[in-house]
Amino acid sequence: MRLLDKTSPAFLYQQVIDFVEHQQKIGALSPGDKLPSLRKLSRQFEISVPTVKQAYIELERQGRVCARPQSGYYLTALQARTLKPRPAKWSHCAPTTVQCRSMIEQVHEAVHLPDTVALGISNPIQVNPPDKTLARLMRSVLSRVAEKAVSYGPPIGDAKLRMQLAFRYQDQGVAINPNDILITNGAQEALSIALQCVAKQGDIIAIESPCFFGMIELIETLGMKALEVYTCTEDGVCLDELASAIKQHPIKACLFSTAINNPLGSMKTDEQRQAIVSLLEHNNIPLIEDDVYSELYFSEQKPKPAQLYSEKGLVMTCSSFSKTAAPGYRTGWLLPGKYEEQAKRIKRAQSCSTAMLQQWTLNEYIQSGDYDRHLCVLRKKLIYNCERMRALIAEHFPSEVCISKPQGGSVLWVRCQSHVNTGAFFQAALEKGVSFAPGVIFSPSGKYANYMRISYGVQWNEQVEDAVKTLGELVFDYSFKQLDQQQAVLKSLDKKSDQQ
Amino acid sequence: MRLLDKTSPAFLYQQVIDFVEHQQKIGALSPGDKLPSLRKLSRQFEISVPTVKQAYIELERQGRVCARPQSGYYLTALQARTLKPRPAKWSHCAPTTVQCRSMIEQVHEAVHLPDTVALGISNPIQVNPPDKTLARLMRSVLSRVAEKAVSYGPPIGDAKLRMQLAFRYQDQGVAINPNDILITNGAQEALSIALQCVAKQGDIIAIESPCFFGMIELIETLGMKALEVYTCTEDGVCLDELASAIKQHPIKACLFSTAINNPLGSMKTDEQRQAIVSLLEHNNIPLIEDDVYSELYFSEQKPKPAQLYSEKGLVMTCSSFSKTAAPGYRTGWLLPGKYEEQAKRIKRAQSCSTAMLQQWTLNEYIQSGDYDRHLCVLRKKLIYNCERMRALIAEHFPSEVCISKPQGGSVLWVRCQSHVNTGAFFQAALEKGVSFAPGVIFSPSGKYANYMRISYGVQWNEQVEDAVKTLGELVFDYSFKQLDQQQAVLKSLDKKSDQQ
Repeated sequence: MRLLDKTSPAFLYQQVIDFVEHQQKIGALSPGDKLPSLRKLSRQFEISVPTVKQAYIELERQGRVCARPQSGYYLTALQARTLKPRPAKWSHCAPTTVQCRSMIEQVHEAVHLPDTVALGISNPIQVNPPDKTLARLMRSVLSRVAEKAVSYGPPIGDAKLRMQLAFRYQDQGVAINPNDILITNGAQEALSIALQCVAKQGDIIAIESPCFFGMIELIETLGMKALEVYTCTEDGVCLDELASAIKQHPIKACLFSTAINNPLGSMKTDEQRQAIVSLLEHNNIPLIEDDVYSELYFSEQKPKPAQLYSEKGLVMTCSSFSKTAAPGYRTGWLLPGKYEEQAKRIKRAQSCSTAMLQQWTLNEYIQSGDYDRHLCVLRKKLIYNCERMRALIAEHFPSEVCISKPQGGSVLWVRCQSHVNTGAFFQAALEKGVSFAPGVIFSPSGKYANYMRISYGVQWNEQVEDAVKTLGELVFDYSFKQLDQQQAVLKSLDKKSDQQ
Repeated sequence: MRLLDKTSPAFLYQQVIDFVEHQQKIGALSPGDKLPSLRKLSRQFEISVPTVKQAYIELERQGRVCARPQSGYYLTALQARTLKPRPAKWSHCAPTTVQCRSMIEQVHEAVHLPDTVALGISNPIQVNPPDKTLARLMRSVLSRVAEKAVSYGPPIGDAKLRMQLAFRYQDQGVAINPNDILITNGAQEALSIALQCVAKQGDIIAIESPCFFGMIELIETLGMKALEVYTCTEDGVCLDELASAIKQHPIKACLFSTAINNPLGSMKTDEQRQAIVSLLEHNNIPLIEDDVYSELYFSEQKPKPAQLYSEKGLVMTCSSFSKTAAPGYRTGWLLPGKYEEQAKRIKRAQSCSTAMLQQWTLNEYIQSGDYDRHLCVLRKKLIYNCERMRALIAEHFPSEVCISKPQGGSVLWVRCQSHVNTGAFFQAALEKGVSFAPGVIFSPSGKYANYMRISYGVQWNEQVEDAVKTLGELVFDYSFKQLDQQQAVLKSLDKKSDQQ
């Protein structure tokens, strides 16, 4: 390995930058790859760690590498390909009675198609499935409580699991009594109960835009109306826009992910989160927070739950183990704030109680420390996959395509050229063995037709790389096809006006 | 053992009757006990089987024994203590916005109290818990599919379990495609989805009266109104009353148990069931049938589902394994009729999917034949417990108390003296270690204050017998106390009118 030229007039850190560029040129480093650690390079070049760090910081400033706390530095896709934090185009829309969309159904069904690379669903645990540990724990649980497992459990869920969850919130400064936690059939049931606690048919629910299609569908089935609020790629729902929406519309509740949003991967700072809670509680509007991704943060620290800043008990937190351990276990929970009584009644009436076996298993999983160890690995692998997937899309998609730079979670939000309707080639992609989530399903008013959500929560292999290439080809093909169609329409219009 | 006196002028069958009476007098046979089988007695007395049968039929005619198909003859409580098939007093009431009732919550919570004999919940599997078989099957399933168990299952549920269910319906003549079945978190979620498919907030739902409080609570949480329809102890909801209710109110849907009702244990004949379906479909009113008890019939044959008679697809069947195998597994299903698309969307949006592990286990349970063998034993034990419990209540409760004679299920409906408010001693009963379900929670308009539901779906032991005695004492105590109070009030009114 060559050493740096310490006699050269060039700064040493600049020589490190040149070295990284050289490695990239000769193909030793590709976008998404991890750079050598500071310590390693300092030893290799016999220079100080701060000098290497200076080089990496300069590369980060230029957007050519990105730092991931506790993980290291990664070679990024080109900065120019990163989605701007604030979408420029934004059209306000009235509260909408969400329409049924067969596209959502198709995306769901595609998950279970054989021989299909499922980039359309967010299923982060695929990166590091804890199935063997959980199966071992469940077998042990089963041998001890076979009898109890067939009996009715308490409607609010297992006391021990609720205790574990309370401990975890207490670690973050949220004073929660285990008896205030309600175990649910996944976060989706928690969201459904929370909405029913505070809103009726026809009421207006403010949501982020874009917003996870599962929430949009939930609001639709409950007969409520969704009001989209302008949301930034970087820090989530915009406070000023929310304040003005509150003035214009009788908003009954807000359904936001202030920790890590899906599909943007945006994250609020603690101060921003507090400001949102203050604004809403000041206006007596309940905040339902969908918190399923908060354990999958890429930053130094776990984002604090909005619950922490609640003074009036108007914040309801919905979460689950579906994105972190076992979606098939259908175990989630709700912190119902001051709506505890209503929430418990709705749970009891609408699904009685939640299967206990999975709750006992998850309790042991947390208690043993295995869950937190698993989360550490899961986060690191997701960080790695994220950069790789961004680089892969940058490589294979048209150069106009921009990609989000998420602060956690397992999905990328990808903007294609404005004339590209990603829903138009959804079927074609399925036929080629790839699924993705078309942008149109992330907005009740049908925004984002030229966007798509691509999951990097996958077991990385050649099929995944081929699948992304296939998607890139489809975007190329359809962008030309759709452009041709538009031009043909324009021409025929021209002709008509000539004839007239 | 003495032989019959074949020279006596008394008929031989009469001598058999005398023998049974004698056995009862000397305490060798108690109410609820099974009589010796026809074959056994015929051998013992060296008389023909038809002669013994003639004696038993005569005893049955007199209401002193009751025949239970495939099980035998049982000594009953006195016929005079059996609830009349048609309640005489019935006051029509307007559709009601069901009020929240803390009493329902108390009944639920009492289930999980330690050292309490839970006669307030209907949990038939306690009579014959299949926990060991299910645990064995689940361990075997787990060893094969640990990996799949943590992943998302299809929203509509496991294909194999749906196939098994379809076979069972096909056996009864109902042509069901497995893909038309939706697996749910117990029957309660199935009912919730079914209601949301066909009705909105404020809509009127017709229910039986009395009606399982879980349904009343469900209608309440969905913001709908319940309309009680006159229901007979013997054959369920009254067709004429239903027809007249349809003329008077814009009924949006009916929620009935035409197979085996809870709390009455009433059962419609196939013809009556068909007549109900015809009436409703003629009026384009959907029928949601709660079918959770239909496997627990005491008659020769399993009652046919109302689904069988549907011509327009307006019948939605809700059922589960909670009353037959494993309430803790939270596995139920919905046959959504023509509302398939809506039902699947609501399921997906409100709870995503149902835990798979339990579904796989139940599929193997059915496939192995173990489920049907278990059901046979369960039914026999329930029949036995039912007669014993009726006899025990007849023995320990005031003589004015009447008891239902259910045709299946696991609960008795008990009418106390008209001035007794059973809710008044619910807490006192808990303090003495017994729970029951006070009658008032079985009617949204607060009828049935002097009724109580007592479960015989229990592991029979001395504690159970003591618990029933305790309840009897409480009824005695409170009937005097409440009578005294009434008389004191009357006296003070008399005094006042004297003074004026």
